[in-house]
Amino acid sequence: MKVRGPFIGVIGAGSCSITVARLACEVGREIARNHAVLVCGGLGGVMAAAARGAKELGGYTVGILPGPNIAEANEYIDFPIATNMSHARNAIIVRTSQVLIAVAGGYGTLSEMALAMKIGKGVVALKPQFSVPGVRVASTPEEAVKEALALLDAVRQRTTQG
Amino acid sequence: MKVRGPFIGVIGAGSCSITVARLACEVGREIARNHAVLVCGGLGGVMAAAARGAKELGGYTVGILPGPNIAEANEYIDFPIATNMSHARNAIIVRTSQVLIAVAGGYGTLSEMALAMKIGKGVVALKPQFSVPGVRVASTPEEAVKEALALLDAVRQRTTQG
Amino acid sequence: MKVRGPFIGVIGAGSCSITVARLACEVGREIARNHAVLVCGGLGGVMAAAARGAKELGGYTVGILPGPNIAEANEYIDFPIATNMSHARNAIIVRTSQVLIAVAGGYGTLSEMALAMKIGKGVVALKPQFSVPGVRVASTPEEAVKEALALLDAVRQRTTQG
Amino acid sequence: MKVRGPFIGVIGAGSCSITVARLACEVGREIARNHAVLVCGGLGGVMAAAARGAKELGGYTVGILPGPNIAEANEYIDFPIATNMSHARNAIIVRTSQVLIAVAGGYGTLSEMALAMKIGKGVVALKPQFSVPGVRVASTPEEAVKEALALLDAVRQRTTQG
Repeated sequence: MKVRGPFIGVIGAGSCSITVARLACEVGREIARNHAVLVCGGLGGVMAAAARGAKELGGYTVGILPGPNIAEANEYIDFPIATNMSHARNAIIVRTSQVLIAVAGGYGTLSEMALAMKIGKGVVALKPQFSVPGVRVASTPEEAVKEALALLDAVRQRTTQG
Repeated sequence: MKVRGPFIGVIGAGSCSITVARLACEVGREIARNHAVLVCGGLGGVMAAAARGAKELGGYTVGILPGPNIAEANEYIDFPIATNMSHARNAIIVRTSQVLIAVAGGYGTLSEMALAMKIGKGVVALKPQFSVPGVRVASTPEEAVKEALALLDAVRQRTTQG
Repeated sequence: MKVRGPFIGVIGAGSCSITVARLACEVGREIARNHAVLVCGGLGGVMAAAARGAKELGGYTVGILPGPNIAEANEYIDFPIATNMSHARNAIIVRTSQVLIAVAGGYGTLSEMALAMKIGKGVVALKPQFSVPGVRVASTPEEAVKEALALLDAVRQRTTQG
Repeated sequence: MKVRGPFIGVIGAGSCSITVARLACEVGREIARNHAVLVCGGLGGVMAAAARGAKELGGYTVGILPGPNIAEANEYIDFPIATNMSHARNAIIVRTSQVLIAVAGGYGTLSEMALAMKIGKGVVALKPQFSVPGVRVASTPEEAVKEALALLDAVRQRTTQG
């Protein structure tokens, strides 16, 4: 039980509309339904909505926080990590996630998507604000998680064969 | 279920004697027996022994890794965090843990103990190689975990009253 | 002499065409001509070309490196900083620079541009590969540095008045 | 002019007695007298006193700051680096310095000394509060800098021969 199923990162803004929160929540539910672990930034907005969705279906959630205190995590985070490194913690989210799903999001999310592409992680976007070449765009939460898992499988096959 | 019981850090060298590994394993078991989450550096030696002990009793384990890849975690880590920040990840271990237990250990462990004292985290040491003022020395794993939990309770009471 | 003139970050890929290197070199020269300090990632490509330009006119250069060793810096770096934090060092480049100039660049540069916008730093781009809302596009190195200095002045005036 | 003479780290507390500040200032002067660059944490106490000493003799000073803003540096810092990583910046100070001199200091300094020893950097201590095996103790600032430069030469000879 070293790694409890895949680790899927969900990235997005710290505050968001109800529509975007609903999408994020559904992404979290799909992640848990597929027995994957949700990794996120541990704060509000998309991060809290996705973690809430994952907890509704009994999934595990990891929150990699920008601040010094684990109490800063939203109430749906099981395992808070206090980095105290502000935005530099984004690099840890990207490294720890085996594949990432971006839900809407502003400059911070764009920065994480670009970093993920830079280091070769797959990224799927739902309602992207910015177009990033190489990022797959999904039209529903179900499709986003399915696509993310397919990207992961492709990586695994390359690793096994190579 | 925001925080599944307290988060207890276990620090120590990446390779160690059988005697030290036995102590670390017993510390891990005591942590799980007390429904606490074990936080460690995710590699070998004391880290692997403590995580093994925690898993034997069904506890959860978090490994905050120095490298870029979660596959680097030892097999007893449930939630690996890939920081890719080498020794700077020690600061994340110290911040994330609410109290720390050092098992033997060399310069790296001394560095973490000192940082923990600097930022006001309690530290309990088993078989310390270095004497650090303010660090409590325990003589058995049971005593170390009991002492760590007592330090945590003291912090909580101060926080509640203050 | 606390801060020797403004600190201007130059970001771009670690390997680049001769055309892009010429632009980066000219950006470095303009930075030095304006008595500003060049901050960069300290490696090759755009970073080395810009640092070379700055040194040709006697400017100072700071290189914030991803690896553990200052010897990894290119030969035009006066003050190498060994972060050993891989891409997380990008956040340090963005924080340390008062304004940034992107020269061409791929996903890594896009990630830094987005982070800079996120935390409110001005960004000027030369030959951008990606379009980022809010980033000013300059057509020559002279214009890029002039624009960067104007953005800095605007920030200073807001700070002084506010 | 890649590296302007050796980079010597000076570590110590952010506030200190006049006696300790005098020692730190003299260490800074000796560093500049030997055409070395002073690297420090950029804040007050020992850091400011050492940087002041270095500037009195025209040396260069680098300050690797814990916070997000270069304006946080003391007035004697030529090249401030804004890490925004709190104590994790200590690892960057240790990596960037080729050898370190500790002046008095508390838990934070102990943490840096231990980390330096862990990764194989030489450390010289003046008026140490804690005894760390392997750290050389000097009795005057002159002796401390002389000893630090000798440690560096020894490393260089090993590197050249090996």
